[in-house]
Formats: sequence, structure tokens, C-alpha cells
Amino acid sequence: MFEAVELKQSLSKEEFKKLEPETRAALLAAQHELREKNIATLILVAGVEGAGKGEVINRLNKWFDARGVFTHAFWDETDEELTRPVNWRFWRRLPARGSMAFMFGGWYWEPLYQYTRKKISGADVDEAAQKITDLERMLHQDGMLIIKLWFHLSRKTHAARLQARRKQSKHIGVLADETREHEKYGAFIKSAERLIRHTDNNDCQWHLIEADDKWHRDMSVAKVIQAAMEQRLHEHRTGDRRATVHPLAPQIESKPVTILDHVNLDAELSRDEYIDQRNLYQRRLHELAWQAYEAKRSMIAVFEGWDAAGKGGAIQRATNAIDPRLYQVISVGAPSDEERAHHYLWRFWRHVPRAGYMTIFDRSWYGRVLVERVEGFAETHEWLRAYHEINNFEEQLTEQGIVIAKFWLHISPEEQLRRFEERKTKAWKQHKITDEDWRNREKWEDYRQAVNTMVEHTSLSTAPWTLVPASDKRFARVMVLETLCAALERALAGP
Amino acid sequence: MFEAVELKQSLSKEEFKKLEPETRAALLAAQHELREKNIATLILVAGVEGAGKGEVINRLNKWFDARGVFTHAFWDETDEELTRPVNWRFWRRLPARGSMAFMFGGWYWEPLYQYTRKKISGADVDEAAQKITDLERMLHQDGMLIIKLWFHLSRKTHAARLQARRKQSKHIGVLADETREHEKYGAFIKSAERLIRHTDNNDCQWHLIEADDKWHRDMSVAKVIQAAMEQRLHEHRTGDRRATVHPLAPQIESKPVTILDHVNLDAELSRDEYIDQRNLYQRRLHELAWQAYEAKRSMIAVFEGWDAAGKGGAIQRATNAIDPRLYQVISVGAPSDEERAHHYLWRFWRHVPRAGYMTIFDRSWYGRVLVERVEGFAETHEWLRAYHEINNFEEQLTEQGIVIAKFWLHISPEEQLRRFEERKTKAWKQHKITDEDWRNREKWEDYRQAVNTMVEHTSLSTAPWTLVPASDKRFARVMVLETLCAALERALAGP
Repeated sequence: MFEAVELKQSLSKEEFKKLEPETRAALLAAQHELREKNIATLILVAGVEGAGKGEVINRLNKWFDARGVFTHAFWDETDEELTRPVNWRFWRRLPARGSMAFMFGGWYWEPLYQYTRKKISGADVDEAAQKITDLERMLHQDGMLIIKLWFHLSRKTHAARLQARRKQSKHIGVLADETREHEKYGAFIKSAERLIRHTDNNDCQWHLIEADDKWHRDMSVAKVIQAAMEQRLHEHRTGDRRATVHPLAPQIESKPVTILDHVNLDAELSRDEYIDQRNLYQRRLHELAWQAYEAKRSMIAVFEGWDAAGKGGAIQRATNAIDPRLYQVISVGAPSDEERAHHYLWRFWRHVPRAGYMTIFDRSWYGRVLVERVEGFAETHEWLRAYHEINNFEEQLTEQGIVIAKFWLHISPEEQLRRFEERKTKAWKQHKITDEDWRNREKWEDYRQAVNTMVEHTSLSTAPWTLVPASDKRFARVMVLETLCAALERALAGP
Repeated sequence: MFEAVELKQSLSKEEFKKLEPETRAALLAAQHELREKNIATLILVAGVEGAGKGEVINRLNKWFDARGVFTHAFWDETDEELTRPVNWRFWRRLPARGSMAFMFGGWYWEPLYQYTRKKISGADVDEAAQKITDLERMLHQDGMLIIKLWFHLSRKTHAARLQARRKQSKHIGVLADETREHEKYGAFIKSAERLIRHTDNNDCQWHLIEADDKWHRDMSVAKVIQAAMEQRLHEHRTGDRRATVHPLAPQIESKPVTILDHVNLDAELSRDEYIDQRNLYQRRLHELAWQAYEAKRSMIAVFEGWDAAGKGGAIQRATNAIDPRLYQVISVGAPSDEERAHHYLWRFWRHVPRAGYMTIFDRSWYGRVLVERVEGFAETHEWLRAYHEINNFEEQLTEQGIVIAKFWLHISPEEQLRRFEERKTKAWKQHKITDEDWRNREKWEDYRQAVNTMVEHTSLSTAPWTLVPASDKRFARVMVLETLCAALERALAGP
């Protein structure tokens, strides 16, 4: 999930200063209109240590009209608070209609802290998430605008920040604490992913902020808040509070960088390298598939990608390696009558492998948020809720011990065109190209957006997406084989 | 919660036979229309052992057109099922559009069984409930009609049923099992309450069926299913699937019996008995309030009831007994400006007591589902979701260790009239009667329904309602004092 905000986005001070005046004016105007309309705004600020949450809030506090804006932290609970139910401290500080509040950590801090330190179980986190969802939904339904911001730092920047602080500070005790803090980075990120995922509801969504570059960070936050406020005012005017989609990781319009942009399409392998590595990983995969069978660990591999990106070829290179008794390839095309008579996930549940076996899906349930979204086969509210449904589905699989690998085979539009032309001219490839392929191509930009949102919302640490640079088919095939081997090896090594 | 279906409702065989033809015809007509409209129907059947679930389903299977109706139990899982994620077995048996399925236990059985046997924790149950909610919501959103039936037997009938079976059966092993089963009745009921409450969502509601009398049981079930099917068809015609209210414990229209009908309004105490018992319980309450203070256990007492039922007098008799440093009485009238600027629960959160103290609410958050419902101050969707909100609120209090006692002071409309007239004529009572009281009186029936629904949905084992017969004020006051003492004693005795 967090790879969506490890994109090294940045903004120069000059760019920031150029955007500042209009952003500031827009925020102020929105604030005043929200006050006039008697709408409460709650901004929840959470994230990794050292991401500069305080700095951002300070800046925003300067930008907003200070009347009716409150900032609350919850790090030193009073006696009054400690002897009452935990939510009492939040309720007493909820913004009244027409006013605004920033809350540091809010109701997220406690479960995160406890889970990271293994003081509570995964089930406890999910229970906490459920209670949070209930609370936020209740406030949302009461008319409140809730904006949830998560500040992320990559592992590297996180370490550097703490290092820098150490040099400045004289408080040795605090430093020791922070070193320990960094050692927990991995655990913290994992807890955070679980909690964010379970509380990222259509009516109360999370925004992930890449916090490595401070100018970019502050402008992203300002833009997110501005958009959310304007959206809320729009809802007020139209009387329609239905959820709308927004990317989990917001972009500054003038400087968009997405996950797909980070795929290095120049990656390639020479023919010799290819043969060596293919053989190596195929042998290993053969062996691992048998080991998985004996250990009763199943695997599900999902292949998605642009038309002509080479899904079929990559799948073949994998299946060539595996004993045919151990796997099944499911090609997902138009559903059968019977499948159509059920929920869209039903046809995939049918093919969940028994313990020890492997199912490879050539296209999958992700069709719901790709082709069905782009072509309008699914209504907005249908594909919007599909992210949650899909995450739940995959969670049930991984909880049963099934290993999941998901591949997006990525090529550029130019490369696709080249391959289409080639298919047209080479007789034995002509069956592989249809009018539909050309039609899909025209919607490249819509698909690109759909893929980005999909990866942001459904890349979990337990079921990650692998974005495969597929301009060079050799490179792509080896990367797929290698990823499959690594996933199985990790699973077989045990927890 | 289950007191809503311990009402000793019954139906004679003759009454049943009289209702049968039209009910049967209506069910069949609804089934055929659902098939025509391509809507799937799933009927989940759960409840205590010995309630006759199988008998009911057999009868219904005879009544329905057998084509496209399936019955599934999940008690002997196959190897195929055991080696896949637990929901796989349910997915493969979900009814297709246009068909119907009965499922015994379904996805409820496993968490219930595990929790009753203390193999999983409360947090695990809540996690399971969350997953169930996700699954059911997904199917509901896909157009499926889900009807959830819970068959309840009172502790007494449960014991008698098992006893009767024992006499019939020759399988000694099974008998020993069932005796153990009855010993777990209490634990089972408690688990069931938790799971039902957390999965009773507006779009997938539970229906509690009183199963003591078989004719009544079967007719209730038929009526519930008929109503649900007709409601679903109505939604299909209007294109509007918004939730509608229904009572948790359905009634057969021609034989309505509700919780309030079971309040014995003839209960009374002589003057001497009253003085003795009042003094006894007041002394005890005084002592217990101090003990609670020392043990840092708080209490919240909620007083609701008909106008002129004697709330004020009952509260006074309690507060007279308690050291004034230990309690606060909050009279809930029209909200202040500041309170109006917040969520309706905010004004009650303000008065949550510190550890060791007591807050007495003269009227409370239940106004949301009483006066606000009846007078239309809250929209239907607002008071509908309030049951869930209130249960969540009280759960947060009880989890913090706060003891909750809730009283409904009940009188008949005739008694109320007598008291109103008295107030009119006695000078020192005239201030106590207003035009509003007379207006409320005209809506007696609406309020009666609202009270019934409220008690059904919000009477939890951790925060139960006490229905106080208040025709005789002396009896009512003593019952309140006694209940407060008992609640504190239980809490102070520890878990």
C-alpha cells in the first residue's frame, strides 16, 4: 500500500510559493463557507515519527482564519480522562458545527501503538477498526467532514531524519527511544497498513501523504484539504452525500507522479542471461511446487496487464516448470450463464485451490476495477466498494495460508502499438489481435488511472502487486519466475 | 434481548389451520415472483438446540414450490471443504439469482460454537461479526434477499425439551452430550446475544422467533418470510432498497403480545411493607455507593417512562440514600445551543462519570428513539441507526467497568388519565401538567410501539432494561432501589 507514496515526489520552494496564494485563498474561502453552512470539520493527522506532522499543522494554522480552529494532541492524558471510557477525551474535543479541529493521532494512536508492540492481537486491531468505523460513520452521518491524513516516510528517509535529530538534540534518553523507534519501523508500517485498510471506508477515506520532501508534503496536504472541503460544500449544495472516488495517494495536479511512472521500462536481459536465469528459476520453481504440495501450502497467482504485454508467455514459462498435476490455469473471459447468476466473486471462489495446489488466473477478479470500471459495466458504487470486497476476499485466502502473487505486466503505449502492428502483419499472430484491442487502446488514459487506483488500494503486504517492466519479454518472464519462487520460499520458510 | 421472545406466545392448531391457506398462497406467490424477477433468497436458520429448526424447514419445504429450493447443513464438512478457506463451503452453495436456499447455522455456527466454549475471545467474535457483516452486505448489495431467523427457547423449555428427548432416545452418548449442552445454555445465550447484536444491520436484520409453542413458531416464521419477500419485491418495483424498520421479535398480527404486555400492573406494596423495604434498600444503597467509590466502579442509571409514571419520585428515593458527593442528577430537557451544535450523543458523553461516581439521567439518549421518533424530530434513517449507536455507546461504558441500570416506568393509559386529572385539581400539582402532556397522551399507541422496539433492540445482558410496574408508586420505588442495589452488588462481587 505504501509504495503508492514512495515515489520521490518533490516540489521546489519556488514552485511552492507560486501555488501558495491561490491555495491559501481557496482554503480560507472554503473554511468560511463551511462555517456559514454550519458544517464541522475534523482533520485527523497520523503517520510515522519524524514526518513533520507538527510543521504542517503549524503552517495550516497560519493559513486558516484562527477563529473556530482548534488543535488537540492526546499525549498527556489528564486524570479526568484516564478514569473515563477512552473515547470521552475525543468527544469533549469534537468540533462543533461550523468550527474546525486538528487532532494528532486521535483514536488511531492507541491501537497502533499497542499492536506495534504486540500488546494486542490482530483480532483486537480489527475490533478497534470496527469501533472507529462506527464512530466515524456516526459523525459523518451527522454532517461532519472528516479528513484523515497519513504521513509516510520511506525506511531510508525515516532513518536519516532520526539521525539528523540525534545530532541536534541533547536529550540522550529521547535519542535512545528514537533509535528503538526506527527498529520498529517495519512492525509499525505493517500495523498501520492493517488499521488503515480496515478504516478506509467510502464515506471516511484515508489520504496517504509522501512526507520526504517538505514543500511537496505541505502542498499535498493543503490540496487534499481544499478538495475535501470543496467536495463537502458541493454535497451540501446538491444534498447528495454519496461517496466519490479519490486516489489514496493524492497528486499535486501540476506535478503528477504515479506508481506506474516508476516502472523502469528500459529493463532488459540479453539472450544468454535470459536462458541462464530462466533455467535456474524454472528448476527452483519445480522443486518449490512439490515442497509446497507436501507442506499443504497453496498458491494463487494472478496475471493482469495491458493487451499484448505478454501475460500468456509469462504464464507458460511458469507452468512449463511445474508438474501438471499440481496446477490449474483459469482463463477469465466472459462469465457463463451460471456464473452470471451469482455474485461476481463466485466464479473465482469456485477455483480456490485445495491445500497444496496452485491456481493461476489469466485475468481475474480485478476485472471489476479495470475493464468493468472503464467500460461502465459496473456502476461507480459497485466498483468503488470492490476494493474493500477484494481485499476481504484475499484476506480470507491468505489467512488460510494461501500464498498470493499478483502481477501487472507493464508496457508503454508505443510498445503496445508496435506489437499490435506486428500481430497484424505476421500471419500466425493475427488471431491474437481483435477490434476490441484497438478500442481498449483508445482508453489508455482511463485504464492507466484505474490501474494506479487498483494498485494503491489492493497492494497489501500479505498480497502485494508486482509491477513487471514488460517491454523486454525476457526480463518480464524471469522477473515473474523469480517472484513466484521468492514468494513460495518465504512461505515455506515459515513465519 | 431475548426477553422479547419469552412472552409465552401460543397459537392453537385450529388458529394455525385457519391462517394456513392464505399464508401458503402468499408465500408461493412471492416465491414465484422472486424467481421471475431473478432475485436470490437466502434463509439462514440458527438458534438454541431443540427449538425445532428442522421441523420448521420441513414444513416450509412442503409449502414452497420445490423447484429451485435447496437446503444445506454444514455439520459434516468434506475433505474438499476442510482444505479450503472456511467460506468456500458457503460460496459454493449460495443460491443463484431466482432460486432459494435454506442454510442451517451458516456462517454463524462456527464463531458461536467457539465462543461458547471459550476457544475464542470477545474480540475474535467481533472480528467474525465484522467479516459476516461484510459478506452479507456484499450479497445484499448484489441483490440477494437474506432472511436471518433465530429460534429461541426459554431456559425452562430448553431443559424440558432435552429431558423429553432423553426419554425417547436410545443413544446414550448423544444424551450425555445434550445434558452438557443445557449446562452451557447461559454461556450460549450470552455469546448469541453478542453475535446477533453485532450482525443485526439495517440491511440484514435478525428476526427472533419464540419457539416454545410449535404452531406459533411455524406461523411466525412463515409470516416473517412472507413479509420479507414482499418487502423485497416492493423494493424491486420502486427501485428503492433503503432499510425499513421491523421489530426484532415479529408478531402474528391477529395475536400480538409484546414485552410491555407482560408487565404486571397489579403489583403493589402495603404502606408498612413499603417503609420496611425502602429503608432496607436505602441503607444498602448508601453503603454500596461508598463501596463502589472505593472500588472505583461508576454507575449510570437511566430513567424513562410515561408522563406521570413517577420518575421524579423514584429518582428522589434513590438519591436520598446516596451521599451527595457521589452522584449527579442530569435532567434532560431541550438541548442548549452548544449541545445542539454537536452530535446528539455529545451532551451525554459530557456527563459520563469519573471512576467511582454515579450519574442519574432523568430522561436520556433514548429520547432519540422515543420522542424524536414519534414526533418526527429525527428522520426515520436517523432513529433507525440510533439503536446501533446507542448499543455501541453503552458498550464503551460497560467495557470501562461502568454499571448501567435502565428503568422504564410503566403505567396504563387509564392510570395516566387518573393522575393527570388529579394534577389538574390539586393546586400544588398543577405545575406538573402541561398541554404537551395531553398531546403526548394522544400518541399513546405510537409511543407504545417505540418503547417495545427500544427494549427489544437495546436490552443487553450488560445493560438490561428493567420494566417497572408503576401503577403503585410504592412498588415502583422499591423495585428501583432493589435493582440498583443488585446491579452494584453484582459488579462489586467481581466477574
